[in-house]
Amino acid sequence: QHKWLPTAPGACSRCIDHFGFLENGTFKQRYLLNDQHWHKEGGPILFYTGNEGDISWFCNNTGFMWDVAEELGAMLVFAEHRYYGESMPFGKESYSNTKYLNYLTSEQALADFAVLIKALKTTLPGAQKSSVIAIGGSYGGMLAAWLRMKYPSAVVGALAASAPIWQFIVPCGEFYKVVTHDFTISGTNCSSNIRRSWAAIDRVSASGEGLQWLSQEFGLCSSLKTPDEVYGFKAWLQETWVNLAMVDYPYEANFLQPLPAWPVKVVCKNLHFDTGVSDKQLLNGISHAVKVYYNYTGDAVCLNTSQTATGNLGLLGWYYQSCTEMVMPMCTDGIIDMFEPQPWNFQAFSDECYNQFGVRPREDWAEIVYGGRNISAHSNIIFSNGNLDPWMSGGVTTSLSESLVAIMIDGGAHHLDLRYSNEFDPESVIKTRALEVRYFKQWLNQAATTQ
Amino acid sequence: QHKWLPTAPGACSRCIDHFGFLENGTFKQRYLLNDQHWHKEGGPILFYTGNEGDISWFCNNTGFMWDVAEELGAMLVFAEHRYYGESMPFGKESYSNTKYLNYLTSEQALADFAVLIKALKTTLPGAQKSSVIAIGGSYGGMLAAWLRMKYPSAVVGALAASAPIWQFIVPCGEFYKVVTHDFTISGTNCSSNIRRSWAAIDRVSASGEGLQWLSQEFGLCSSLKTPDEVYGFKAWLQETWVNLAMVDYPYEANFLQPLPAWPVKVVCKNLHFDTGVSDKQLLNGISHAVKVYYNYTGDAVCLNTSQTATGNLGLLGWYYQSCTEMVMPMCTDGIIDMFEPQPWNFQAFSDECYNQFGVRPREDWAEIVYGGRNISAHSNIIFSNGNLDPWMSGGVTTSLSESLVAIMIDGGAHHLDLRYSNEFDPESVIKTRALEVRYFKQWLNQAATTQ
Repeated sequence: QHKWLPTAPGACSRCIDHFGFLENGTFKQRYLLNDQHWHKEGGPILFYTGNEGDISWFCNNTGFMWDVAEELGAMLVFAEHRYYGESMPFGKESYSNTKYLNYLTSEQALADFAVLIKALKTTLPGAQKSSVIAIGGSYGGMLAAWLRMKYPSAVVGALAASAPIWQFIVPCGEFYKVVTHDFTISGTNCSSNIRRSWAAIDRVSASGEGLQWLSQEFGLCSSLKTPDEVYGFKAWLQETWVNLAMVDYPYEANFLQPLPAWPVKVVCKNLHFDTGVSDKQLLNGISHAVKVYYNYTGDAVCLNTSQTATGNLGLLGWYYQSCTEMVMPMCTDGIIDMFEPQPWNFQAFSDECYNQFGVRPREDWAEIVYGGRNISAHSNIIFSNGNLDPWMSGGVTTSLSESLVAIMIDGGAHHLDLRYSNEFDPESVIKTRALEVRYFKQWLNQAATTQ
Repeated sequence: QHKWLPTAPGACSRCIDHFGFLENGTFKQRYLLNDQHWHKEGGPILFYTGNEGDISWFCNNTGFMWDVAEELGAMLVFAEHRYYGESMPFGKESYSNTKYLNYLTSEQALADFAVLIKALKTTLPGAQKSSVIAIGGSYGGMLAAWLRMKYPSAVVGALAASAPIWQFIVPCGEFYKVVTHDFTISGTNCSSNIRRSWAAIDRVSASGEGLQWLSQEFGLCSSLKTPDEVYGFKAWLQETWVNLAMVDYPYEANFLQPLPAWPVKVVCKNLHFDTGVSDKQLLNGISHAVKVYYNYTGDAVCLNTSQTATGNLGLLGWYYQSCTEMVMPMCTDGIIDMFEPQPWNFQAFSDECYNQFGVRPREDWAEIVYGGRNISAHSNIIFSNGNLDPWMSGGVTTSLSESLVAIMIDGGAHHLDLRYSNEFDPESVIKTRALEVRYFKQWLNQAATTQ
């Protein structure tokens, strides 16, 4: 129901390496800016700390900022993260060589944001006195929180929506436990049928006929032939269930894929079977279930197991980041979750990373640099989480102090609060957004009186 | 009066590059540790954030930590800064090539400290529950403050003694104004005679005979011949006055050089001349004055204008740091100060840096990364400054909040409070040290109740 508001795109020259001086090259960092509602001379700046993807996509999916701009008299800025979208430090070569990837880190991205904020305040007439509030969701939410933690002179506060800043240190099974819980509560036998489906796939795919049946049943673009491909097929299914849990929004939406309202419920309608069901019946249900995710529009000619979500996300970049700093241990046991048992194996992961990029992850670094659980010295950060969102497993879900506030959104999926308001929004998210705006105003008042 | 306490030297493996993953080498970071007075199971750790020099020298010149160890039941750790002393990332090659110098930054040093603290707490039996307090003086004091600002999960508070964290942004003339003031108050006509000496040197050195006279009068190891050498001679004198102001301690001491009590007063006894004095008389006084600094022991055979202080400082390393991040604008005008007029010229400085190291300084970076004047979001930092110390010009000299506390030490030179207690200590520094310990205890109590 909201009109798309045009933004003025810009780009700013940025050091490729903020933390070393030998590499003295610069690159253009893209940002989008809208000052339609901005009160010059003091109106705040809401600054979206871009995450692993094209910034215009995040801009379109962060309606909350557009919704509150007028009330706050705020300028909106959406800053793109280096190595994503159009902000490529080495142009088209940026991903061609592990040497060029060396400057893809969260610390460099935070420095980009701090430098951009300084540049905006220095060059935009009237912005000198503008307080800046960082806003982000998911990894962008982690960056918003960290920007406030590491550069509190740049931003007076941060809204970190669905930001799993503790995913590095929580038990590895927590994430998939939440995914499973979503399916458990969304339909009778739903998670237990998904749990049973893995063995059914193994049994059916043991024969050539079964492989062909599976490929046809799921309408795969490319038929399954080898055990490796079956393994990949199961991984693709697993990621599909995860994505569904993330985007289990209460209304029709198109974030990772175009989907109906409450998509997990819709999926689960296909998975009510009792224990007596045959393998093929069960898998027929599973295939209908995944098509809710991959073919809600009815336009898909076939299902492509090499992609699970929008192309606006920079998967390769994120893989590099998880292979270096962003080490989030994940595991499944098939008991507290509905997936095949898979322990967390740091060494195997590290070897994979080394084969792909020639780098090895540093297991403890994220905890050291971002403080782990011991972050109470910081201030003015809202951590919002939805209880349906798997990422809440690594989030801050209880307040740590008067100004490090946790908000739980009942019935909320991945950063629901950042989306445009909608007539089907649950009461919880309406209240959450109001509370967030109240904190924004409090921070702005605070800043105004201490300046 | 204090016995030297032996420390257990150690070394810990450290990433050469904390902020990139392509360079995956490590190096040995040296640290000194003393647990003689440590209360195991909870006694705090006083952690000296080493600055630009050999850590054993700082260890010997930070008697304050040794003096308070017993009262606090504290472990003492002195951590060496990378690229100084024995902590060389590329061994003997570390300074051989600008490529190797690329990891000499304050951010890397802070990360070294944070990683070392984590390692100590993980590996030393009993240290898991120990709170850590960062302590440092001068650049080490800046690092102590920044460690608390950037890694508050690592340290519960910081004592930043004589730490000019604002030297990047204060007017360029402030530093030399304080130097001049010290000489003005330490003897009649003292600063005005130094101000007059520059032109006298120019006049005398205009002739060959005069050059020879100057060289003999000052007992220089190498005679002055060229105008460049005269320029260097004046620069050496200027640095001598600066150093004297820094170490104007109330008792005999050997920090930068062995010196009498109140050395600036002793220097000024040679500079009482009225305006009628001849050039050679004036310069004879100057030569006696500098010999207070360079030959208090009477052992100097001749004066070497290529060195002004102890060899324990890593001058080349510090020059590299000032050529990259640590850009501290300095200027003189000969009016508010006693030096020859010299404006601050960033471009010329940048060119010099480029010629020497192949890098250029980034003028605004220190302000952006360390917050400039806007640091009130942080907590638990003591900024102590002596009013005789030129570096107080870039220091925090008024409290910013209840927990960002400034202490001025009347009659104090460069981090006097960090030295061993002494019978000639002025009341001001005795009170300062007591107050510092009181804050330490407050932080430790705070941490104990929130854990």
